[in-house]
Amino acid sequence: MSKFFVHERGICESENVGDGTRIWAFAHVLPGARIGFNCNICDTVFIENKVVIGDNVTIKNGVQIWDGITLKNNVFVGPNVTFTNDPFPRSKIHLSEYPETVVEEGASLGGNCTILPGIKIGRMAMIGAGAVVTQDVPDNAVVMGNPARVVRYLQDQK
Amino acid sequence: MSKFFVHERGICESENVGDGTRIWAFAHVLPGARIGFNCNICDTVFIENKVVIGDNVTIKNGVQIWDGITLKNNVFVGPNVTFTNDPFPRSKIHLSEYPETVVEEGASLGGNCTILPGIKIGRMAMIGAGAVVTQDVPDNAVVMGNPARVVRYLQDQK
Amino acid sequence: MSKFFVHERGICESENVGDGTRIWAFAHVLPGARIGFNCNICDTVFIENKVVIGDNVTIKNGVQIWDGITLKNNVFVGPNVTFTNDPFPRSKIHLSEYPETVVEEGASLGGNCTILPGIKIGRMAMIGAGAVVTQDVPDNAVVMGNPARVVRYLQDQK
Repeated sequence: MSKFFVHERGICESENVGDGTRIWAFAHVLPGARIGFNCNICDTVFIENKVVIGDNVTIKNGVQIWDGITLKNNVFVGPNVTFTNDPFPRSKIHLSEYPETVVEEGASLGGNCTILPGIKIGRMAMIGAGAVVTQDVPDNAVVMGNPARVVRYLQDQK
Repeated sequence: MSKFFVHERGICESENVGDGTRIWAFAHVLPGARIGFNCNICDTVFIENKVVIGDNVTIKNGVQIWDGITLKNNVFVGPNVTFTNDPFPRSKIHLSEYPETVVEEGASLGGNCTILPGIKIGRMAMIGAGAVVTQDVPDNAVVMGNPARVVRYLQDQK
Repeated sequence: MSKFFVHERGICESENVGDGTRIWAFAHVLPGARIGFNCNICDTVFIENKVVIGDNVTIKNGVQIWDGITLKNNVFVGPNVTFTNDPFPRSKIHLSEYPETVVEEGASLGGNCTILPGIKIGRMAMIGAGAVVTQDVPDNAVVMGNPARVVRYLQDQK
């Protein structure tokens, strides 16, 4: 049996959560979500059903992980980061399938950045706080601005 | 008697809510708010008193609807969209009357966009994710950027 | 004994809270935080431990105040404003000490703006809604944009 922590004011409806993961107050995890080991799911985070989250992932407050989003191991998602999963949303119109967003291993998303639907964010990439990411981000790239542009590449990191 | 749903961890203090509307966990609706039929008020949404919301409106997580804001039928408000209602806010200084913000029928506000006070957003307009809207948006316009600019117009839609 | 209000759905773990301060639903204050008199801590706000908040401060919904952040008297923090405290965040890598962010007396932070780590925001400054603040802001300055630039200075205000 998995040993993860759910704060008494948080809600976790999934049983697919790894040992050592902590889910904090006013967070809400829907039944279909799969979450790895040693993750930190902070206050007010919302995680939908068709979601896969790796190990050692940090999701700070005010973030939602929608259907179709995958976060690989060691990803950092800063506070109020906003994912989207519909390129042309209209109320009460639902897509039959959502575009797939993937954040690759070790990437970090700075606070309050916005990720457009169907984006791939490369390994160890660093998204600047407040950036609006409208296209794929290469491995090791640092991006910032609205729309986000690559400003430099990180040296190879272990 | 109106038949709407309030999650056991949500708070609805208004009785002016239409049939079929759902209010989810950690959402909070104040007593004066008027909300139409078949709306979806997601987790952590906050709705103040002098607010009028039409039918079939979707408000995703992390959004607040302040005094003076009207959302017409079929409006979509994406996650973490931020409305404001004071053009020059100072702590403990309250306006006697708030500027009126109106989002017209069928308009969509992309995730994490920001709406300055007193703005009118036209019918079927589409606000890009992460945009900062500083002036009125015409019917059918698509806007993006900070500050938001019109990038194109949609063909007439039913 | 201090007389402050905590909504029955909010959580306040600190005893260092001044008279007249109100902490609303789904807000969460950690034990080490120090908060002054007559503050308004709105729904879903999160306040960490190494935080000092003055008197008459307003913090609107969806804001987090992280370790290392100081808000002086009469500061206004708009909805979904995002502070950060790590210039190069990686999951599971914690700084031994966080850069100090200070918002000086009477300053206002417009809705959904983003404050990079270690920033000083001057007295009575006004940060525009949706701005991304990447460097210190002088007293009385009005800034906006991504990155934020000074657009004018306010006359001396009492």
